[in-house]
Amino acid sequence: MNIGIDIMGGDYAPEEAIKGVISYLKSISDQEEDIHFVLIGNPDIAGPYLAALEQWEGSYTLIPSASVIGMHEHPTKALKEKQDSSIAIGFGLLQMGKIDAFIGAGNTGAMLVGAMYTVKAIPGVLRPTIASPIPKLNGRYNFLLDVGANADCKPEHLVQFAVMGSLYAKHVLDLDNPRVALLNLGEEEGKGNILAQATYPLLKQHSGINFTGNVEGRDLFLDNSDVIVCEGFTGNVALKIAESVYHIFAEQKKIQDPFLDQFNFEIYGGTPILGVNAPVLIGHGISNQPAFKSMIENAVKLVKSNFTQILHNHFAEKAEA
Amino acid sequence: MNIGIDIMGGDYAPEEAIKGVISYLKSISDQEEDIHFVLIGNPDIAGPYLAALEQWEGSYTLIPSASVIGMHEHPTKALKEKQDSSIAIGFGLLQMGKIDAFIGAGNTGAMLVGAMYTVKAIPGVLRPTIASPIPKLNGRYNFLLDVGANADCKPEHLVQFAVMGSLYAKHVLDLDNPRVALLNLGEEEGKGNILAQATYPLLKQHSGINFTGNVEGRDLFLDNSDVIVCEGFTGNVALKIAESVYHIFAEQKKIQDPFLDQFNFEIYGGTPILGVNAPVLIGHGISNQPAFKSMIENAVKLVKSNFTQILHNHFAEKAEA
Repeated sequence: MNIGIDIMGGDYAPEEAIKGVISYLKSISDQEEDIHFVLIGNPDIAGPYLAALEQWEGSYTLIPSASVIGMHEHPTKALKEKQDSSIAIGFGLLQMGKIDAFIGAGNTGAMLVGAMYTVKAIPGVLRPTIASPIPKLNGRYNFLLDVGANADCKPEHLVQFAVMGSLYAKHVLDLDNPRVALLNLGEEEGKGNILAQATYPLLKQHSGINFTGNVEGRDLFLDNSDVIVCEGFTGNVALKIAESVYHIFAEQKKIQDPFLDQFNFEIYGGTPILGVNAPVLIGHGISNQPAFKSMIENAVKLVKSNFTQILHNHFAEKAEA
Repeated sequence: MNIGIDIMGGDYAPEEAIKGVISYLKSISDQEEDIHFVLIGNPDIAGPYLAALEQWEGSYTLIPSASVIGMHEHPTKALKEKQDSSIAIGFGLLQMGKIDAFIGAGNTGAMLVGAMYTVKAIPGVLRPTIASPIPKLNGRYNFLLDVGANADCKPEHLVQFAVMGSLYAKHVLDLDNPRVALLNLGEEEGKGNILAQATYPLLKQHSGINFTGNVEGRDLFLDNSDVIVCEGFTGNVALKIAESVYHIFAEQKKIQDPFLDQFNFEIYGGTPILGVNAPVLIGHGISNQPAFKSMIENAVKLVKSNFTQILHNHFAEKAEA
């Protein structure tokens, strides 16, 4: 398989992206040598760092890019104007099937828009979504979605998030019969805003998921669910509060605790875009070597598990039904 | 002034409510003796605890109630059926002007519905709201509203929350020119769901508040604002995540930290209902002596500052304009 990486994306590009590739290559055995990296970046800038890849020169190809989309550029505008950017070239390769997955830690909006305009949404998927793992006190994670791609949602969107989150938890996170919960302001059925009230019965009657009811904000870090569904406005606020808990207690107050360690994004690397026609992983802007390695592992798992095809099959069946 | 207290409300009723009254009475000087307590409760149950109030027997009156609205009863139904309950009697007294403020730590929904059906919303106030203080790292608080009373909101509701929160911060919390922010998923103007996008320009052009722009989930515990406005769904999720931070780090992990100490609801006591025709304070179900004392102090401050009249004047001017 071919894993494409935007080595110009992120605050520590291209060094940490390339180090992540090396770290991954060192970790795998010979049997897995069918993994080939397609690195997209500026040869002049990346050149010195690529020297470290010398012993794996058969394991990667450098595709030259001329420009970079900055972290604060307008996604749609930047993608249109910078067709020679690493993100635009990456999605072009993904669309042509030259790579099987695309990883980037650059402009999140551009990654999302790029995915939507090139490989596009899987037929039947109304709204591709971005998910994020939230650490639980017991050492596991809640998989929260949507976390910002879809600020306004309808009940049918939340139902699809529930399905995609559940399939991801099952096939990629290896969870058996993952518990899917609806984020709400109360536990009881009937609680919520209009969206949550309308979504609850749809989730309850859905045969394809293990819906376990509502969870509240206080359940975010608890093991009362495996997948938590909400619209992207509340999900984004919840994610950023969770991230601030890490900044406050681990980084500022220097408190050492296994629960806080789990917040370290290096462990889980990046955030998948669920519902598009190829595996796409978005990394934090501050992604470093372990984060890139994690994203590569995740991308390999997404490709090997045929996750895109699993979603395809699910939504194709739904369309026929 | 007459301060009414539902001494049957809360997990530790009536003992802690009565202890809170004693604690307050001990703390005030003779000059403030014009404060009279109207305690609403079952004489048989409260009797033994009232003995401790012997030396202040001129400072309180017991109004007997026969029933209690349980924590999990349906608010509207319970209020209709249990007119002899402490909450129903308390709001009756408030409506008749026999008490100047009402404090209760019982069923939150019943307190809210009771306020709406008896003293009612201030003319011009579209939606009374419940606010909650959120600790900041610098030792102060963000005043977050709405935190659950209004799960679905329109821009004009959020604007009124901003005005009421700002007036509360100024007149009750003694903040000079309080900074009002909109909770959003990004910092820049134009970000957000439809509600936030439509609310931003209304807040920006409002002459009566010091609007400082958007804040994100990561700003909840930071000193980038004094008042944070959102609809009650996201506000409730945010509040409960914040509360869970206290449970996890202070109660479970026994971490001692001044920031965590601030989460202790005993410090701020209860949550005001803003926008109704009299001061009403809702306490946590687990309210104890210090929490009741704080709520009494808060109620006294609300009455002394003439806060209800301040809101009245503001919204009356708006209606005329």
